[in-house]
Amino acid sequence: MTGRLYGVGIGPGDPELLTVKAVRVIAESPVVAFFAKAGRRGNARGIVDRWLNAGHVEMPLYYPMTTESRFDEPPYKEALSDFYRKSANAIAIHLEAGRDVALLSEGDPLFYGSFMHLFERLRDRFPVTIVPGVSSLCGAWGAAGTAMTWGDDALAVLPATLPAEELTRRLALAEAAVIIKLGRNLGRAREALAAAGMAERAIYVERATMEGERVLPLADADEASAPYFSLILVPGRGRRP
Amino acid sequence: MTGRLYGVGIGPGDPELLTVKAVRVIAESPVVAFFAKAGRRGNARGIVDRWLNAGHVEMPLYYPMTTESRFDEPPYKEALSDFYRKSANAIAIHLEAGRDVALLSEGDPLFYGSFMHLFERLRDRFPVTIVPGVSSLCGAWGAAGTAMTWGDDALAVLPATLPAEELTRRLALAEAAVIIKLGRNLGRAREALAAAGMAERAIYVERATMEGERVLPLADADEASAPYFSLILVPGRGRRP
Repeated sequence: MTGRLYGVGIGPGDPELLTVKAVRVIAESPVVAFFAKAGRRGNARGIVDRWLNAGHVEMPLYYPMTTESRFDEPPYKEALSDFYRKSANAIAIHLEAGRDVALLSEGDPLFYGSFMHLFERLRDRFPVTIVPGVSSLCGAWGAAGTAMTWGDDALAVLPATLPAEELTRRLALAEAAVIIKLGRNLGRAREALAAAGMAERAIYVERATMEGERVLPLADADEASAPYFSLILVPGRGRRP
Repeated sequence: MTGRLYGVGIGPGDPELLTVKAVRVIAESPVVAFFAKAGRRGNARGIVDRWLNAGHVEMPLYYPMTTESRFDEPPYKEALSDFYRKSANAIAIHLEAGRDVALLSEGDPLFYGSFMHLFERLRDRFPVTIVPGVSSLCGAWGAAGTAMTWGDDALAVLPATLPAEELTRRLALAEAAVIIKLGRNLGRAREALAAAGMAERAIYVERATMEGERVLPLADADEASAPYFSLILVPGRGRRP
């Protein structure tokens, strides 16, 4: 009998926003694996701190260090591919020995998660259970206290890495929107929102449900670039009886 | 001191997919309110069954009976508006008396939830805390076991109530998509997906994480209309190192 791989969504940051199922699966899994930057404890590890016990085997998976900043450049792509392959192999050793592994994923495991890269490499060899989580999007609009989508509103989730005209074109076809992957593309997102006539109702959210949470009108966010845990919300204004 | 209104996301259906915070807030709130169809116990009430105790005051909010099926027709709109006003007033009586009220919301409270209608009517008068939840979308792609969005994929969430050409136009501008509010519009969604070249990879999901869960390729779902708890997933195929 091999072990089972659990893809465990741990929510947007507040340790209380793990599901009851996630807490149980973590408690029952002898091995807990999580991604972290080299030399760091890792944000996921911090979120589940209170849910681990002394018996857990912890398995940090450290992202490769690289001077490349662009995901689509070959050296970085190769380093990442190599990292995912090695991480999958390391997890497979536990699964082959019959030990269940809880692989943590911030937010939801199947929504822009690193988990998916190991999932695709292991799913044909081992049984897998997905434990869905509260996505960072729900965490963000909850923190902002803004009703996000009403009635027949359509929602677009757009990465700010898209070209500005493309962002604008897609925003124009949505009643509500979330712009993710801001980083150095914050200015571009701002331009696209202005062009789509959505800038005034846009809300900037940083570190939702975590220490240092910030929520403010995008117009008042004067930084040139945005940190990792940030996004822009454009609430819908649909049908309201 | 007035009471506090909690908008509590209770997730997609599996009672274990409530967050730890949702369970705590429900346990600590003397009044638990939830929407239900007239004459029914209500799906939300069923989901939290194990999380209630004998001391809770239960407050079912029954949707008005109507023969109108279209939301945008005046009689139904008026009946709903009246229902939301009366429900808000009934909750306000508890809040004014200093009793906290946990108002349940399937999925996440600020994402297409009836909760929002009461939230907008009460937020200026009482303190409100949002407890984000696992959305039905995350529940659905978790049940399907399909990685949904990768790298720079954009996701479109589209109601099938949009005209077919509009659906197709918006699908063409997304790498990944979810079509909601299927009902009698299932055929229209099917046409739009075919026109956008997405029909082959579309997955039909019914009652995700609940009893009677069904996951199948859309091509194999031969029903003419879809029940309330159903949606279509089109997984992204983005960057995968």
